Amino acid sequence: MTLATTFSLELAEKLSFAIDDKTKPVGSLGQIESLAIQIGLIQNTLAPSVDNPAAFVFGADHGVCAEGVNPFPQEVTEQMLANFAHGGAAMSVFCRVNGIKMNVVNMGIANPDARWANVLHHAISNGTANFREQPAMTDAQSAEAIQIGASLASQAVEQGHNLLIVGEMGIGNTTSASAILSSILGLDPKDCVGPGTGATEQQQTLKIKVIKDAIARVASPLTPMQALAEFGGFEIAAMVGFLQEAATLKTPVIVDGFISTVAALIAEKHNPGLSQHWIFAHQSAEPAHDAMLQALSARPLLNLQLRLGEGTGAALAYPLVKCAVAMLNDMATFSSAGISAS
Amino acid sequence: MTLATTFSLELAEKLSFAIDDKTKPVGSLGQIESLAIQIGLIQNTLAPSVDNPAAFVFGADHGVCAEGVNPFPQEVTEQMLANFAHGGAAMSVFCRVNGIKMNVVNMGIANPDARWANVLHHAISNGTANFREQPAMTDAQSAEAIQIGASLASQAVEQGHNLLIVGEMGIGNTTSASAILSSILGLDPKDCVGPGTGATEQQQTLKIKVIKDAIARVASPLTPMQALAEFGGFEIAAMVGFLQEAATLKTPVIVDGFISTVAALIAEKHNPGLSQHWIFAHQSAEPAHDAMLQALSARPLLNLQLRLGEGTGAALAYPLVKCAVAMLNDMATFSSAGISAS
Repeated sequence: MTLATTFSLELAEKLSFAIDDKTKPVGSLGQIESLAIQIGLIQNTLAPSVDNPAAFVFGADHGVCAEGVNPFPQEVTEQMLANFAHGGAAMSVFCRVNGIKMNVVNMGIANPDARWANVLHHAISNGTANFREQPAMTDAQSAEAIQIGASLASQAVEQGHNLLIVGEMGIGNTTSASAILSSILGLDPKDCVGPGTGATEQQQTLKIKVIKDAIARVASPLTPMQALAEFGGFEIAAMVGFLQEAATLKTPVIVDGFISTVAALIAEKHNPGLSQHWIFAHQSAEPAHDAMLQALSARPLLNLQLRLGEGTGAALAYPLVKCAVAMLNDMATFSSAGISAS
Repeated sequence: MTLATTFSLELAEKLSFAIDDKTKPVGSLGQIESLAIQIGLIQNTLAPSVDNPAAFVFGADHGVCAEGVNPFPQEVTEQMLANFAHGGAAMSVFCRVNGIKMNVVNMGIANPDARWANVLHHAISNGTANFREQPAMTDAQSAEAIQIGASLASQAVEQGHNLLIVGEMGIGNTTSASAILSSILGLDPKDCVGPGTGATEQQQTLKIKVIKDAIARVASPLTPMQALAEFGGFEIAAMVGFLQEAATLKTPVIVDGFISTVAALIAEKHNPGLSQHWIFAHQSAEPAHDAMLQALSARPLLNLQLRLGEGTGAALAYPLVKCAVAMLNDMATFSSAGISAS
C-alpha cells in the first residue's frame, strides 16, 4: 500500500511497530495487518474504532433500460427498494447479522410516487435519460446527487458512525458503470461489459453497442465528472459525493462491487490519492472489475464470485475490518505476555 | 462441490431450489450460496443453524524441535497457551469479536507441570519424540490423542454447539505437517516445506533434510494413520479425531490453515468422503497448502496471506458462514416479496 500524502508517515511507522509487537510472528496476519494500518491512518489514530457501522444503499433508475440491455424489468428497482424496506433482501440480512445500521436512499426511481417510511427520499427525477441518445443527467442533476451523497455521509459521521459502507440498486446500472469505466480508463467497451446480474450473450452484445454509440455521441474525451454526468446514474453520483465527503471526514468506507467501484474510480481520478481512504470489499465476478481495482491499486478482501451489488460484499467484509481493528487494540504484546521473540 | 454419498440428493435439490427462489439473481451470491447448501446438507435440514459456535485450539510440543528447524524457541508453545488463557492472542481477540466460545486444550507440551484454570488438560506426554530418529508417537499415544479429540467434539455437540472450529499451536508443527503431507500425497519434501511462521532459508533447507531422513528411516509406504503416528503431533492427532467425530455427528467444522488441513487430509484419506463435512477457511501463505486443498477438492473462503495458525483464519471466516445460513433462512422469496423474476 502506498500512502496518500495526507497520511502521517510517523503514524504509519508507529502503527507498524505496534502490530509487530503483538504476540504473533511479524507479518503473519497478512492483509489483516495492512487493513489495521490503513484504518489507523484514515482515522489518524493508534487506536481506531469501527464499532458503529452504517451502510447506505443508493437506488435509482436508468433511462438506458429502454434499450433492452437488462435481464430484469425496470420495475425491479422499485420492488427491491420495497424489499429493503421490509428487511427481506440479501443486504438486509447481512446487515442484521453483522450489526450494521442499514439506510436506503431513493435517488430517483421511475415511479415518482413511491414512498416507504424507512427509505430516505432524495429523488432527483424519475430516472436518468437514455444515455445512448443524450446525457443521462444534466450537470445540475449530477451536482445535486453528489451533494446529497456528501450530506448523508456528513450526517452519518455526526451521528457517531465511525465506519461507512456504500452499495447500490438500479436495474441498468452495470451498463452505466461500464460506459463510465470505458470512458475514464480509455478501454474498449467490449472489455468493460460482463454478464452483470445475469445478462445473456445477446444482451451483452447490445450493451457494448449502446456504450459504443454513447461514446461516439460524446466524441471528445471527458473528465471523470463529465463521464459521470453523461453516462452515470443518480445513485452513482450520490456514491461519488458520499465517498469524497467520508474521506474528508477521516471516516473509512467499505466499497462494494462493480458499480460502487466505478464511483470510487470517478472520485479518485477527480481527486487523486483519495482512494487510500476506502476499503475494497471484494473482487466481483464481473470481469471488468479487475481492471478498475488495478487502476485503483486496490487489493480486495474477498473473492467469493459475488455479482449482486446492494452493498452485500461490503457487509460481508465488515467483520474482517472489525477483527483487524480489534487485533491492533486488544492483542497482547510480546513484553506484556512474557513471550520469547525469535 | 461433489456430494459425499451420505448426503441426501433430494435435500440438495431442495436447498438449491430454496436459494434460487430468494430475491436475487440466480447464483449471484457465488460461494455464499454453495456454503449455505453445504451446511444444510451436513446438518441434514432446510433450516440449518450455526448460532452457537465453539473453537478448539489444540496445543502440543514436538521432539523434532531438537533439530533446530524453528525460528521460535520451544517454550513459546507454553507461553502461547498462557496467552490464550489470558485472552491476549490473535485467536482470543477474533473469537471475542465474532462471538465464538474458545476452548484451549493442552495435548502435551514440554513442561508437564503447566496448568491454567481455563485450559483443558489432556496431555499425552511432555511432547512427541524426535521423528527424525524414531516414531513421534507410539500407536497407543496416537490412538489416545484421536480419542480425546473425538470426545471433545462429542461433548461440544452435546452442549449445543452447532458449528465447530479447529486450530492449533505447537512450535515445530509445520515440520510435522509437511512430513505427513509428503508421505500421504507422495510429494517431494522440498515441495512440502515453506517458511511456516518465519523460518529462514537455512532452516527450510534443514526442515527438508529432516523430513527426507525421517521418510528414509520408515522406508515402506505408510497408511494415513501410520503417517500420523510416525511424524505427527498430539494436537494433529486430536484434530483428526475431532474432525471425524464432528462429521459423524452432522456438525460442520471450519478448518483453519496448513496444520489443521493436514489433519483433515489424514481423516479424509482414512475415510474418503468425510471432508464434505468441513469448511476450509482460507488459503494460507504456506506454499504447500494449495496442494492439500486441491487433494481435498476444497475451495477456501478467504485468501488473506495468513500464516499464523491458532484457528485465526477459521475464526475470521465464521461470519461468512453465519451470513450464508441467514441468507437461506431469512431472505425473502420472489413470491413473498412480489418481485418480478427475469
